[in-house]
Amino acid sequence: DFFIFYFFKKKLIYLLKFPHLFFLYFIGNVGLVPEDYIEFRFSVCYFITACDGDGDCCHVTVGSIYSFDEEWDDDSDDGKSTVGYGGSQMEEGGTMQRGGAHSTMKISLNKFPGFSKTPNPEVYLLTKSVAKGNDKLPIYAGEVGPVWLYPQIQLDCVVADPKKGSKMYGLKSYIEYQITPNTTNRPVNHRYKHFDWLYERLVEKFACALPIPCLPDKQVTGRFEEEFIKMRMERLQGWMSRMCRHPVISNSEVLQLFLNYRDEKEWKLGKRKAEKDEFVGVKIFSTIDPELPELDPGQVEQKYEMYSQFTRSMDNSVKELLAVGHLHWKRCTGPLQKEYRQIGKAFQNLSSVFNTSAYPSRKLDATGKTYEEIAELVAGQPKKDLHFLMETNNEYKGLLGCFPDTIAVHKAAIDKVKEADHLVTMNKISQQDKHIMEKNLSTMSYALQAEMNHFHSNRIYDYNRLMQFYLEEQVKFYETIAEKLKKALGQYTTM
Amino acid sequence: DFFIFYFFKKKLIYLLKFPHLFFLYFIGNVGLVPEDYIEFRFSVCYFITACDGDGDCCHVTVGSIYSFDEEWDDDSDDGKSTVGYGGSQMEEGGTMQRGGAHSTMKISLNKFPGFSKTPNPEVYLLTKSVAKGNDKLPIYAGEVGPVWLYPQIQLDCVVADPKKGSKMYGLKSYIEYQITPNTTNRPVNHRYKHFDWLYERLVEKFACALPIPCLPDKQVTGRFEEEFIKMRMERLQGWMSRMCRHPVISNSEVLQLFLNYRDEKEWKLGKRKAEKDEFVGVKIFSTIDPELPELDPGQVEQKYEMYSQFTRSMDNSVKELLAVGHLHWKRCTGPLQKEYRQIGKAFQNLSSVFNTSAYPSRKLDATGKTYEEIAELVAGQPKKDLHFLMETNNEYKGLLGCFPDTIAVHKAAIDKVKEADHLVTMNKISQQDKHIMEKNLSTMSYALQAEMNHFHSNRIYDYNRLMQFYLEEQVKFYETIAEKLKKALGQYTTM
Repeated sequence: DFFIFYFFKKKLIYLLKFPHLFFLYFIGNVGLVPEDYIEFRFSVCYFITACDGDGDCCHVTVGSIYSFDEEWDDDSDDGKSTVGYGGSQMEEGGTMQRGGAHSTMKISLNKFPGFSKTPNPEVYLLTKSVAKGNDKLPIYAGEVGPVWLYPQIQLDCVVADPKKGSKMYGLKSYIEYQITPNTTNRPVNHRYKHFDWLYERLVEKFACALPIPCLPDKQVTGRFEEEFIKMRMERLQGWMSRMCRHPVISNSEVLQLFLNYRDEKEWKLGKRKAEKDEFVGVKIFSTIDPELPELDPGQVEQKYEMYSQFTRSMDNSVKELLAVGHLHWKRCTGPLQKEYRQIGKAFQNLSSVFNTSAYPSRKLDATGKTYEEIAELVAGQPKKDLHFLMETNNEYKGLLGCFPDTIAVHKAAIDKVKEADHLVTMNKISQQDKHIMEKNLSTMSYALQAEMNHFHSNRIYDYNRLMQFYLEEQVKFYETIAEKLKKALGQYTTM
Repeated sequence: DFFIFYFFKKKLIYLLKFPHLFFLYFIGNVGLVPEDYIEFRFSVCYFITACDGDGDCCHVTVGSIYSFDEEWDDDSDDGKSTVGYGGSQMEEGGTMQRGGAHSTMKISLNKFPGFSKTPNPEVYLLTKSVAKGNDKLPIYAGEVGPVWLYPQIQLDCVVADPKKGSKMYGLKSYIEYQITPNTTNRPVNHRYKHFDWLYERLVEKFACALPIPCLPDKQVTGRFEEEFIKMRMERLQGWMSRMCRHPVISNSEVLQLFLNYRDEKEWKLGKRKAEKDEFVGVKIFSTIDPELPELDPGQVEQKYEMYSQFTRSMDNSVKELLAVGHLHWKRCTGPLQKEYRQIGKAFQNLSSVFNTSAYPSRKLDATGKTYEEIAELVAGQPKKDLHFLMETNNEYKGLLGCFPDTIAVHKAAIDKVKEADHLVTMNKISQQDKHIMEKNLSTMSYALQAEMNHFHSNRIYDYNRLMQFYLEEQVKFYETIAEKLKKALGQYTTM
């Protein structure tokens, strides 16, 4: 028995039902899906979702289907779909997701047992023992204040060579990226969902102490697949480099596993181990070992206030720059391009009229063509310079969006220590406990200071590089226009 | 007896009536006007108009008054007021009257006795006699076709040194310009109303054969007096130069009078004589003497079609360029300036945030300031280059707006000659009359051709000069921006 499922854009879509099997016919393409994989959802887009036991799902978006393969989304294969994004936004600014990236990290709080909203630092504050050996995260006095221990050779990696892979009888396709760390020079392959897994682990383990920026957004590819893949790769590269450049994260077992695993077995084992890691959440502070004099709670609060203020201000400024940049992008590719084209056309039209007289001349036409070329330069420029400015600031927006959560843990700890006197009086904790709390708060503060110093050194480097690049491209842009106009001017003779 | 006249913007305006005298009190200023001069008009702006017997009027615009003197309009002293213009338009594009200038010449048709709408060429077509001596307007075969007789030295003049004069108990002020022709090097003074009188004479005498462009619009000065006077002078200069450069007009008695009169008496006598000139309207053709073989009506019509087509097309193209230029002007002084300012501010704000950290730096602030400077360059540029482009094209728009009327006279003559055969049959005219008509039509055509060749030679010169100037300024503009950005870039050190 079969039935007509849906008419879409004059194209008939059939769904044939056999026992435990569905046939989907779309525009001449035939797919075969086991019945258990089929689930019907009716929304604006008319989805059909098929999932296997592994949690791998593929969505058929009937509403926008063109060919069968394109519609098997490689990213929502983690079971979460973000269909309905993209499209319009991609076309507007020329890039995707601008401003749409959610900027706050998702601390999976329910993964920290015993904590509700903000991870409660109490468990840590009363801890006496410090992790030993490899697990120890030392903090030293650097020139600029407390700093993490930086490795002798900075880890980095290259994300490249995106390849299409497929699963589920060839119905499901995904993109696999090749990641090559500078330490081994041996490439490993990962899908987006693996990056997402890594992200989840890093958040779990470090987010109380370090801002772990979000991955580039999940997104349905649609028709812009190539551009989308290129953009996602670029952003995964940015994310990975940031993780690799971090002295604490780069040294973590889970990142090492991600970059260095030798085979499926090692990967699966490593995954299992990482997921069982106990030193996660606020417990990370118990592994931090500042070889520096203890700070009193007043000093800690002062530092906290300063960083809180700075990150909030920078977040606002970055968002302002992004908003202005977005507007400028739209202006350049929209009305400004149109206007220069119109100027060019007006000169050319006038030239045509002049050429119908007994006195033809080509120079005004050439001027008109020059302005049309300028129109294209104006419209193409944002991709050349503004793109990088937007990408970098988007990355910082993501990073800065993590600070409120990270900083909230510190605030909670400060408040707990403030309560300590009262708790001592109430005999709830001992004087010694109070001292441990203060010492641990000092450790947390050193962690925050080290992290902020790391942040500043990165941001100085990043913004210096960014502004240099941006200004270089801007200079080239204006010089090119001046050059073109000079050439057009050269055609006129002085009278 | 007095009464309260009007409340305006919290300011009380009194009108005191004495026998035959009114006192006007405005914001502390007191004016005294004879009763006969007062006329009340109530419109949106609340006018009071006072006129003397000479036709000199002054208008008090209550609605926008700030100080007394400013409101005595020096231009509407010819009895026609165009109050209600200006203001918003002046502020919008940075210049006045853009696009608002009426583009068709006003042939005062009721001044051609016997003609209704289009001046009827019949009177001329049947005329046998040709003016002799100085009144003769010869046409020669030039390289490019029929041409007017050009004088050995091209007449030109300088309009400069606008001075305020006053009349009517000092209540009425006007501007007098100094006009110095290159022939005598002796300056004469004229008010706008004298230019207008000259314009009326030239239209009366030549408009059937030559396009006489309008004077710059009459306009209430308001608060922008200085800028307005400068702009009007610039435009009067353009108009006078165009008249002086015309081989036929430059040689006319009326223009010579305007430029060369020695005293009030000579001026008044000359005025009276010019106003009594008989060779006006279509009769101007009877003074034209083409020393060239007679054209048959078919050739005449072909030329007519060609010029008609050309002037219409050029009119459209010029209007397109003006529209695009106007838009560009608004964009540069409006949203683009704002955008570059915002970019500058965003960089500066980010810089301020960075400077609250332990790592202050001035270079990002300098970049921000550079973009603020660019904002001002962008907003100031239209005045430097687009202004001249708009002015020249506005002039041409005015000139081209005269052609339909001029050309209509030719069309009417062509139609009359087409009827001639029929009229001969009907015995209304003789065969000889018909031949005179054809010969006169040929003369009219030569006049049109000579005029078109004059037009082309001017327009080639004007647009060549215009485009050179425009492109030179544009090159400078983009080079200046590139230079500024290079300087900003120089502050960043390569890492």
